[in-house]
Amino acid sequence: MSAVEKPKAIVLLSGGLDSTTVLAIANEYYECIALSFDYRQRHVSELEAAKAIARDYGIRHQVIRLDDGVLGGSALTDKAIDVPDHIEPGIPVTYVPARNTVFLAHALAIAEVNHSADIFIGVNAVDYSGYPDCRPAYIEAFEKMANLATKAGVEGKKLHIHTPLIDMTKAEIIRAGIERDVDYSRTVSCYQADLHGKACGVCDSCRYRKKGFEEAGIEDVTRYQ
Amino acid sequence: MSAVEKPKAIVLLSGGLDSTTVLAIANEYYECIALSFDYRQRHVSELEAAKAIARDYGIRHQVIRLDDGVLGGSALTDKAIDVPDHIEPGIPVTYVPARNTVFLAHALAIAEVNHSADIFIGVNAVDYSGYPDCRPAYIEAFEKMANLATKAGVEGKKLHIHTPLIDMTKAEIIRAGIERDVDYSRTVSCYQADLHGKACGVCDSCRYRKKGFEEAGIEDVTRYQ
Repeated sequence: MSAVEKPKAIVLLSGGLDSTTVLAIANEYYECIALSFDYRQRHVSELEAAKAIARDYGIRHQVIRLDDGVLGGSALTDKAIDVPDHIEPGIPVTYVPARNTVFLAHALAIAEVNHSADIFIGVNAVDYSGYPDCRPAYIEAFEKMANLATKAGVEGKKLHIHTPLIDMTKAEIIRAGIERDVDYSRTVSCYQADLHGKACGVCDSCRYRKKGFEEAGIEDVTRYQ
Repeated sequence: MSAVEKPKAIVLLSGGLDSTTVLAIANEYYECIALSFDYRQRHVSELEAAKAIARDYGIRHQVIRLDDGVLGGSALTDKAIDVPDHIEPGIPVTYVPARNTVFLAHALAIAEVNHSADIFIGVNAVDYSGYPDCRPAYIEAFEKMANLATKAGVEGKKLHIHTPLIDMTKAEIIRAGIERDVDYSRTVSCYQADLHGKACGVCDSCRYRKKGFEEAGIEDVTRYQ
């Protein structure tokens, strides 16, 4: 006799702190299919982290290669643009045009083919870099669009975009992960991590992460360069 | 002295009758960048048609290869599912889950990087196959989402999704193209066109196209098998 089957969910897994916490949350209730994206990002070691984390959880994992020139115009995709060593006001140069829309569109296609109505994404609108495609209004608009886009939506199988972290501080996210035994030393958040996944400690992603561990009163297990 | 520069537009160009007509319309007012997608579609000869048409217009053209397994679950992507030889009620098996969302997400990313606020897509809600992602409500929802997604949107550069064909019959589309000197013998609409771009004449795409030429009173220049 098999146990009751869990419903399937698609989880966007960058290999960073936030998305790994989301996976730990989603994995309690869903059979997760993790998606990562190779877009020639500067911090390609996050993909190795994502693969290792997916293996840890024993889940299906698909690394989707985006074609050349699809995502661009960012310090994360163009080595001629430096990653800032401080948190900048406004939308920083690490913003990648339409990145979450491209990621979520892929997730939507794969969700429908797998008869899944649940997509998880680790966006956060508190301790974040000010990217427009991390805001609640954006996510709500994507969900509405997605339900008009698909046969599943027309047939009344409502798709949900789950954003369990959206209103949490980085410290709260870390506590939620620690409660679920997330090993944050496996995760790579740094925008310019080296090939071994070691972090620079000064980019805004590193700064938000470091501040999160401090505020949570939890030892920072990040591997720094 | 150079003439006044036209604004840039991204045009989704499948190589079929509709998208080629859209290109002819957009090209009057915009400097067009055409995008086509290689998703291992059954009718791969449409990509050759798209390349030839983009060359005819002398415009930039990018063929984006989607990774394996991104678009699936359709008679157009799975050779084990036959393309029907008649028009079916409801959403037919040629529906490709989330196809237009994946295409438009790519167009959005490329538009923002190219400082373009205009995307053209040849969706049509009259003589069409009943795909959910061809309906006006879907397009409106995508446009709304897109304006929340991007830095350009936040900064007030409103992105428009243009659908010049949405309310036209196939006959009206053909007349609009003929007025603009479109050579429809170059276009491939058939869902199971052979490698030379010759059409089957019986799939629903062929049937809508054939009926369009008849109703327009224009000679059908389609190359049939």
